Amino acid sequence: MKKDLLFTPGPTPIPPEALLAMAQPIDYHRSSATVALIKDVLEKLKHVFQTENDVLFLTSSGTGAMEGAVANLLSRNDKAIVIRSGKFGERWGEICNAYGIEVIPIDVSWGNSVDPQTVEGLLTEHADVRTVFATLCETSTGALHDIEALANLTRIRPTLLVVDAVSALGADDLQMDTWGVDVVVSCSQKGLMTPPGLAFAALNQRAWDAVERSNLPKYYLDYRKAYESGLEGSVPYTPAVTLLTALQCALNRIRKEGIRNTIARHKRLALATRSAMKALGLPLFAASPANTLTSIRLPEEIDGKAFINLMRDTYGITYAGGQSQLSGKIVRIAHLGWVNENDVIVAISAFERGLVEIGYDIPLGAGIAAAQEVFNGNL
Amino acid sequence: MKKDLLFTPGPTPIPPEALLAMAQPIDYHRSSATVALIKDVLEKLKHVFQTENDVLFLTSSGTGAMEGAVANLLSRNDKAIVIRSGKFGERWGEICNAYGIEVIPIDVSWGNSVDPQTVEGLLTEHADVRTVFATLCETSTGALHDIEALANLTRIRPTLLVVDAVSALGADDLQMDTWGVDVVVSCSQKGLMTPPGLAFAALNQRAWDAVERSNLPKYYLDYRKAYESGLEGSVPYTPAVTLLTALQCALNRIRKEGIRNTIARHKRLALATRSAMKALGLPLFAASPANTLTSIRLPEEIDGKAFINLMRDTYGITYAGGQSQLSGKIVRIAHLGWVNENDVIVAISAFERGLVEIGYDIPLGAGIAAAQEVFNGNL
Repeated sequence: MKKDLLFTPGPTPIPPEALLAMAQPIDYHRSSATVALIKDVLEKLKHVFQTENDVLFLTSSGTGAMEGAVANLLSRNDKAIVIRSGKFGERWGEICNAYGIEVIPIDVSWGNSVDPQTVEGLLTEHADVRTVFATLCETSTGALHDIEALANLTRIRPTLLVVDAVSALGADDLQMDTWGVDVVVSCSQKGLMTPPGLAFAALNQRAWDAVERSNLPKYYLDYRKAYESGLEGSVPYTPAVTLLTALQCALNRIRKEGIRNTIARHKRLALATRSAMKALGLPLFAASPANTLTSIRLPEEIDGKAFINLMRDTYGITYAGGQSQLSGKIVRIAHLGWVNENDVIVAISAFERGLVEIGYDIPLGAGIAAAQEVFNGNL
Repeated sequence: MKKDLLFTPGPTPIPPEALLAMAQPIDYHRSSATVALIKDVLEKLKHVFQTENDVLFLTSSGTGAMEGAVANLLSRNDKAIVIRSGKFGERWGEICNAYGIEVIPIDVSWGNSVDPQTVEGLLTEHADVRTVFATLCETSTGALHDIEALANLTRIRPTLLVVDAVSALGADDLQMDTWGVDVVVSCSQKGLMTPPGLAFAALNQRAWDAVERSNLPKYYLDYRKAYESGLEGSVPYTPAVTLLTALQCALNRIRKEGIRNTIARHKRLALATRSAMKALGLPLFAASPANTLTSIRLPEEIDGKAFINLMRDTYGITYAGGQSQLSGKIVRIAHLGWVNENDVIVAISAFERGLVEIGYDIPLGAGIAAAQEVFNGNL
């Protein structure tokens, strides 16, 4: 009897009331009901973004909001610092390149997080840098970056800090207003427990001032149009109505739990997963691991791709494998969104059994016991 | 007992099996099941596009695919002819302007369709025009454009014909290969009976050659990346998985009906609606009306916005009103997607009753009888 469970860093499991909301007959996007829905969703997103700034949305993947940040904030020949510590940091650089932005890269070896002092050095060296593009959780490695430290550098300078919180929003802490982050982008299918297809951005006043100056081409990804429409519960283009209905359900859950508790839950799930891996003698890949997902470096004798396929086909458990240079070398277990302690026990139990099945010698149950200790408060 | 029915040109009603497909637990977008889903959907879209060219998809509104056509086909300082006969033709011009394309506009009064001779004259005058941007059905007016005649002009020239078939695909005929249309763009929430959030484009070889030359900035809307990934059942960015599952259900319906029959059904529904309006003495707004929707010019004494609201609030029937300069002046009744003869009878009946309720004198039932005559084959 197969029961499929997703432990991927997006899409993440969808709560049942959100699934059923999408199965209702669709409404017109200009109806008063949809206007109220959009207003409600945008208001509740502020709680998750930990901001008083208005949040805007696009019908796109998270990458659409990332490109939007470049196209809306910068102008031709602007310079930007791009922190590249994995596939998604590299994406910031690729987008900047597509728009002719001069990229000052900071290359961090995969699995590590940026040293804020390196950023400070470059900010001092290049005083004309318009923007620093950073990543909260680098999803390809599971590494968390110290966004608060970066914001301490940018908030006292005319340089904007733009943070890709695509995978980590609602799982790892990001206090946009308190820390002074200028732009945060995210999307629906991670901590927000909603299917993919919606992307979000929140901008502070400094960022909106930059939008005024920007001369890069944009139309569909125009932040100002999305923002101004959103204030009226409207949209410049037909939005993904069914996904908005699902998002409302998911946001109601986060509102009820409270964003601080939501982040604390993810912290607990991540800690338990890391404790389990330590008990199994498996090394973590990220030096500063995020709450969003746990990356485990597989022993060299294990074929990571075959292991991932075995877990999915035999156990109904989907983990994510490594991307690009990490293909086949790591397993990424996301504990993200609509996931609780029992789910993590299942993720660890299947992981243990799968390792034994492929002939790798670990003590069955040792990871589970370590996770239980965390959940019972005995760290 | 309220039963809400949508007669809007997107979103359109979703078939029940598509609604239920979206309520299933979500799958990972890299799973073998999703790979098969993407391949199946892209193959079945070719039937609807009436083409042997591969179809690509983006997670966006239709406007994303429109912008993609500009950003992927053109280069800085290129010239384009833009046919503007309503809000969506104007959108082509706005997108071109955003990218610094020199626009040679053809302004057609709203409700009318372009005269191909005008296009021919401009093509002769400006031999260096790269692209003609046209609209199959101008959704803001209900006017159908003669795309076959335009293709006859462009296929013998080095100029590409790019057609916005956003609202009309699957309702009005567009024989991409037979007519020689270079690029067709569309989206999910119209004739394809799927919620909004997916956009499509099909390009022939001439168009792909232009993509090779293009130097405009693009990343998320990059056609080549979407196309090449799609061939493998993959995606460059996380796609709207739930919408793909719904789309598969809808495409299965079109496949079963057959695209020629699907278009014939829409033709019959449109003809019945037009006959009904004539029987009620109400003038049509479009000179060459599309199968997609019927636009009715309201008598001056009727407040179009109040009428639309009355119909929605009292009868549960959502028509679309006029946009921009037509606000309050026309009613647009879409008979699009998962709509049959009985639905159109309801749309007409409610329309008649609503007119009587606001004090406008029409013979109750006259429109219905005219529609029935069409449905019974007595034109």
